[in-house]
Amino acid sequence: MTYSAAALVLFSGGQDSTTCLAWALERYGRVETVGFDYGQRHRVELDARLTVLDGLRRAFPAWAERLGADHLLDLRGFGAVGESALTSERTLEMDARGLPTSFVPGRNLVFLSYAAALADRRGLDRLVGGMCETDFSGYPDCRRETLDAMERALNLGMDRDFRVETPLMKLTKAETWGLADQLGGRALVRLILEESHTCYLGERGALHAWGRGCGACPACELRARGWDEWRAAA
Amino acid sequence: MTYSAAALVLFSGGQDSTTCLAWALERYGRVETVGFDYGQRHRVELDARLTVLDGLRRAFPAWAERLGADHLLDLRGFGAVGESALTSERTLEMDARGLPTSFVPGRNLVFLSYAAALADRRGLDRLVGGMCETDFSGYPDCRRETLDAMERALNLGMDRDFRVETPLMKLTKAETWGLADQLGGRALVRLILEESHTCYLGERGALHAWGRGCGACPACELRARGWDEWRAAA
Repeated sequence: MTYSAAALVLFSGGQDSTTCLAWALERYGRVETVGFDYGQRHRVELDARLTVLDGLRRAFPAWAERLGADHLLDLRGFGAVGESALTSERTLEMDARGLPTSFVPGRNLVFLSYAAALADRRGLDRLVGGMCETDFSGYPDCRRETLDAMERALNLGMDRDFRVETPLMKLTKAETWGLADQLGGRALVRLILEESHTCYLGERGALHAWGRGCGACPACELRARGWDEWRAAA
Repeated sequence: MTYSAAALVLFSGGQDSTTCLAWALERYGRVETVGFDYGQRHRVELDARLTVLDGLRRAFPAWAERLGADHLLDLRGFGAVGESALTSERTLEMDARGLPTSFVPGRNLVFLSYAAALADRRGLDRLVGGMCETDFSGYPDCRRETLDAMERALNLGMDRDFRVETPLMKLTKAETWGLADQLGGRALVRLILEESHTCYLGERGALHAWGRGCGACPACELRARGWDEWRAAA
């Protein structure tokens, strides 16, 4: 294990970023977390972040020693770009990619710009994020090629030597459950299962086999399918 | 002149971005503007944007036809990164580059991420900014090399073909006055002189030979020196 480096984990309180956080805590001597408030419809996402951090601290004393400050940055202005795009002559319509014109692209580029600015000021040199080509091929800002270009822009623009690390890039959701198990055993799997939040509709509700959520939105479906695949293979 | 392309100009209401806006209006069939409210100490900067836009529309009817919507995006959360960096164990100090730890680096990367997201939604493919290597060599996010990397990250991350254009990159402040004269003659020079805002302290005050401002801050000094050089050479 290399404890020389220090990391900032982009942490939303979901399954993927919780797994990334555990991955960083196994590797780095100092780990901080950053979340983004971009006008989430559901306060529940921001609450899940704190519950998961608290759960990690309780269940993993060795990680708790390395887990530093948590930051929450206001990105509501970015969420509003879509609204500004609807000003004057343009109205809501679908673009060639089938996305509504109010959809705001390039979210991960903005997340990384903010995270790098914060990491620069905090003396952290690894930026860890849960971007993944496997399940979200529709979002070009999740691709490793994009993140390599962004890493270069950040390093040139801030005169630093950041590394943008994406441990889930090539994993399926089933494999992400497997990674969590490998990093923190059943205690981590249980924490992610019960406390991490994924559901687009912001529902917590009853605890299903795969966690809490509406069970019907794309995010819940993906999570449930990954869980089933992982259990079937175990 | 190519009127096929459409541009979004990063427009702060200062000398540089006003000159860039005129440059874009000479070149492109549709031009929109975007400004950023990142918690400017002085409301006067945001007011200057509107005054300059209004002045351009009045003095240049041909440009007025091509000048479309103006957008103002909320970036106050980015300004707050510096404050978040001071949480817990870290306090205000200077880093190795002589910058206070509350300084937030990489501002132009964030501006461009927001601008590209907006341009994507508005169907604009040129991003025009007043970044300049000549006067601000201390800011690595103003260098063309950085902007080339960022252009690549934006294009990969949004699956687009944006061009980031920086017409002032190699110009001195004196040459920027010359460019304004070339683009819009004395009417444009006069508008920039009287209405564009540069002063860090937010002072408008009396009209000096080079414009309004405190006359003592680095931004005023740079502007006044550029003006004197341009006048001396004219």
